Amino acid sequence: MDTRVVALLPDWIVPIHPRGEVLKHHALVLHGETISAVLPQEKLAETFPEAERKPLPGRVLLPGLINAHAHSAMALLRGLADDLPLMRWLEDHIWPAEQACVGPDYVRAGTELAIAEMLLGGTTCFNDNYFFPDVAAGTAIRAGMRAVVGLPIIGMPTAWATTEDEYFSRGLGVHQDLLSEPLVTTAFAPHAPYTVGDSAFRRIRELAEELDIPVHLHLLETAEEIDTSHQQHRCHPIDRLDRLDLFNDRLLAVHMTQLEPRDMDRAARAGIHVLHCPASNLKLASGMCPVAALVERGVNVCIGTDGAASNNTLDMFAEMRLAALLAKGLSGNPEAVPAEDALAMATLNAARALGLDEQIGSLEAGKQADVIAVELDRIETLPVHHVISQLVYATGRHQVTDVWVAGQPLVSDGQLQTLDAARIRADASAWQRRLETIDRQHANKSVP
Amino acid sequence: MDTRVVALLPDWIVPIHPRGEVLKHHALVLHGETISAVLPQEKLAETFPEAERKPLPGRVLLPGLINAHAHSAMALLRGLADDLPLMRWLEDHIWPAEQACVGPDYVRAGTELAIAEMLLGGTTCFNDNYFFPDVAAGTAIRAGMRAVVGLPIIGMPTAWATTEDEYFSRGLGVHQDLLSEPLVTTAFAPHAPYTVGDSAFRRIRELAEELDIPVHLHLLETAEEIDTSHQQHRCHPIDRLDRLDLFNDRLLAVHMTQLEPRDMDRAARAGIHVLHCPASNLKLASGMCPVAALVERGVNVCIGTDGAASNNTLDMFAEMRLAALLAKGLSGNPEAVPAEDALAMATLNAARALGLDEQIGSLEAGKQADVIAVELDRIETLPVHHVISQLVYATGRHQVTDVWVAGQPLVSDGQLQTLDAARIRADASAWQRRLETIDRQHANKSVP
Repeated sequence: MDTRVVALLPDWIVPIHPRGEVLKHHALVLHGETISAVLPQEKLAETFPEAERKPLPGRVLLPGLINAHAHSAMALLRGLADDLPLMRWLEDHIWPAEQACVGPDYVRAGTELAIAEMLLGGTTCFNDNYFFPDVAAGTAIRAGMRAVVGLPIIGMPTAWATTEDEYFSRGLGVHQDLLSEPLVTTAFAPHAPYTVGDSAFRRIRELAEELDIPVHLHLLETAEEIDTSHQQHRCHPIDRLDRLDLFNDRLLAVHMTQLEPRDMDRAARAGIHVLHCPASNLKLASGMCPVAALVERGVNVCIGTDGAASNNTLDMFAEMRLAALLAKGLSGNPEAVPAEDALAMATLNAARALGLDEQIGSLEAGKQADVIAVELDRIETLPVHHVISQLVYATGRHQVTDVWVAGQPLVSDGQLQTLDAARIRADASAWQRRLETIDRQHANKSVP
Repeated sequence: MDTRVVALLPDWIVPIHPRGEVLKHHALVLHGETISAVLPQEKLAETFPEAERKPLPGRVLLPGLINAHAHSAMALLRGLADDLPLMRWLEDHIWPAEQACVGPDYVRAGTELAIAEMLLGGTTCFNDNYFFPDVAAGTAIRAGMRAVVGLPIIGMPTAWATTEDEYFSRGLGVHQDLLSEPLVTTAFAPHAPYTVGDSAFRRIRELAEELDIPVHLHLLETAEEIDTSHQQHRCHPIDRLDRLDLFNDRLLAVHMTQLEPRDMDRAARAGIHVLHCPASNLKLASGMCPVAALVERGVNVCIGTDGAASNNTLDMFAEMRLAALLAKGLSGNPEAVPAEDALAMATLNAARALGLDEQIGSLEAGKQADVIAVELDRIETLPVHHVISQLVYATGRHQVTDVWVAGQPLVSDGQLQTLDAARIRADASAWQRRLETIDRQHANKSVP
C-alpha cells in the first residue's frame, strides 16, 4: 500500500459538499488511498511538513465523476447503427451482433475500451449493467477503477445464463467472489418490468435485502412499457413494483421518461433514486425525464450515459451539460438544475444512490481519494468567471489531465497509467471487422 | 499567393455533397486557396505528379464547420452569469457589463478569443452579430478566418451608434470597406422585431436588395416576443415582416422556437433560412425549435452556437450533436435529423443561407479550401463502424488536428498558426478581472 503523503496544489477545489463551494489556494492532501485533508495552502507546511507537493496550475480538483448507468461492453457497438426506430435498431443490428459475439472475450474488450474512455474523461466509478459481470469486475479491478457491477436477471436465455435459477446462482457467485474486493461491489440488475417475471422479482427483493445491495432496473423508458404492463400484469409498472415491495430506497430506476405528477409524488415518498440518461432518451426518442419536477419533490437524481450503442459516448461532462440544459428547456425554467446541482448529480447524488456516499462523491477528509484534475486555463474555458459554471457548461472531457482512484494515479498528464491504450485500440479495430461482417450478413438476410 | 499543390491523404473524406458519402483511400488536392480535386489515391501520381503529399493517418477530412449564429465578442462573458431568468440575466449582468466595456478593445479581445476557440474546434466560418463589426472583421482577416459580419441595427443608442441614421451610415461604411476582402462579407443584422421599427426595417429591405446581402434577425425566440408584437404592432411578427417584404429567402431567422404549423408552412413557402441554436434556447428556457417539422417541409436549417454568454461554448461539434438528439426527442421520431443531415446543417446548409455555397460548405473541386482534419483513431471514437455517425454522435472538438481556410493552415497538429494563444489567454484574464469588478459593483448597487 502506498503510504506517501501527497499534497495536490491546484488553483481551485470544488469539494461538492457543501454544494456550490469553490475553494481557492487550498491543498488536497492524499495519504495512500484516502483524503487526509482539504486545507488552505499556507497551512500545509505546519500540518503536513512531510507532504510531497504536486503543483497543478490552472487546474481545478473535484471528485471523480460517477456514471450512474452504463452498459460498458457495448462500447464495441458505438455507431454500429443509428437513427433508426427502436425495434429495427434492436432486432436488425444490436441483438444479432450481441447474439453472435457476447462472451467473456467480447465483454473484456468492450469493458476495457469503455473504462479507458471513462477514465480519460474524468469518470472514476461506473454502475454497470451487462452480461458476464465477473469479467467486467475483473477488468475494472485490473485497471484500478471503481465499479458497481449488475447481476443480470432477464426472463430469456442468453450467453450468460439459461434459466432463472442459473441467473441467480451465477449472480450470487459473482457477488460472493467480490466480497473482499475494495473497488467493486454489486447490485441486482433485473432488465426491465416487461422481461422479468414476478417470481424473479420476489427473489431479488429477498436477496437484495439480505445482501444489502441496490436493485438497478430500467423503468418507464418508453410509453409502450406502460401499455405492455397493463396487458401482461393488469397494472402500471409502479403499482406492480410496489406490490412486490421493490419500489423503495434500494431501487435505482433508470430512464423514467414517462412520469405523471402522481408517479413523481410516489417516487419521492418511496425514496427511489432516478438514473437519468438524457442523451440516450433523446437519441432513441423514448421521452424526456422531468428532472426539474423530480428535484423539486426531493427525489435523488443521478446522471448516466447508458451504453455507447445509444449515446454514443461515455462522456459524463457532455451528459452533465445536457442534463442541465434539457431540464431548463423542458420545464421552461432557466433556474432549473443550476450548474452546482448538475455537478452533484454526477458525483455525490450517484454515490448516495449506490450506497457509497461514505466513501466517494465529494472531497472530504476520510473519504477515498477518487479525484480528477481539470485544466480550465485554456482558450475554451477562459475567462473563468465561475468555476462550477465552466465545469458544467463549457468544459470538455479532453480538459481532464489527471485521475486518481483510491489514491492510485490512473491518468497522468492525459495518459492512461494502468491500461495499454495501443492494445485497446487494436482490439477495438479487430472487433470492428468482426462486428461489421455480422452486421452485413444479417442485413443481407433481412432483405426479402 | 501560395501556389504549391498539396495532396492531403486521410483515411476518409466526407465531402458533404453528395449527402452521406464517405470516401476511402482518396486524396484531397489543394492548389493555393482552392480545392483542385478529390480523387482516388492511386490516381494521384499520374494526375498530380508534382503534389506535395501530407499523410493524415486515422483522420477524416471534411469541410470546415460554419457557425451560423454567433456573438463572438461575448466570449469574454462566458459564465459571468448563469441559471437565471432572462431579464435578471440581461439587466443585472450582461447589459451592465456591456455598457461598461463594449468598444473596439473589448470587441477585438473577445472576437480573437472566440476565433481561437472556433478554429481549434474545427469552425472555419462564422456569421457574427455584434457591435463594432469593423473590428470583428479586422480580427477575422488578421487570423485568416472566414466570416460574415452583421451590420447592427437596433432602436436604441449604443457604443456603436446613437441614431438610426448613424447605424445605417456606419454599417454601410463597414460594408464598403470590406468589398475587396476575400474572406469577410456582410449581412444586415437588425436585432429583433421588438427593438427595430418599421422605418429601419424598410431601409434594410431596400439596401439588402441593392447590396445583395442577407438579413440576419433574431425571430420568435420567446413567447413574449409574439405578445409584444401584438401589443406594439397589432400583429404576429411574421405578418409584420411579411408586410415589410422581409419574410423571404434573404432572411436568416435565428431561434424560431415559437412556431405553429402554419408558420412553418409559410417559412417553407417563403424560402427563409432558420438558424437553430439549441443549447442557448434550452439554457435560457426560451423554447425548442421544431427542426424535424421544418426539415420535413423543406426549410433550410443551419446550426449556430449563439454567444458564449448563453451557451457557454462555441463548440459546433457539441451543437451538431445536440441538434440531432433534440430533434429526435422533440419529434418523438428516432429517424429525425440523422447524422448526415446534422452535418449538412453545420456545413453546406449554412453556406447556402449565407450565399456562400458556390465557395464553401463541401469538398468539391473549384471550391475554397476550407478543410478540417479530425482524428477518429482514438479511444473515444473507436470502433469506426460509421464515419458520419462518429463525427456527429461521438466526436469532440479536441479531435480536430488541422484546419485550413482558403488553403492557409490556421491550426496544425492542434496548434494555432496565425494567432498567439498565450497572449489571447492573458487578454482574457485581464478582461476577466475588469468584468468581475463591474459585475460586483452592479450586484452591490442592486442590493436594496
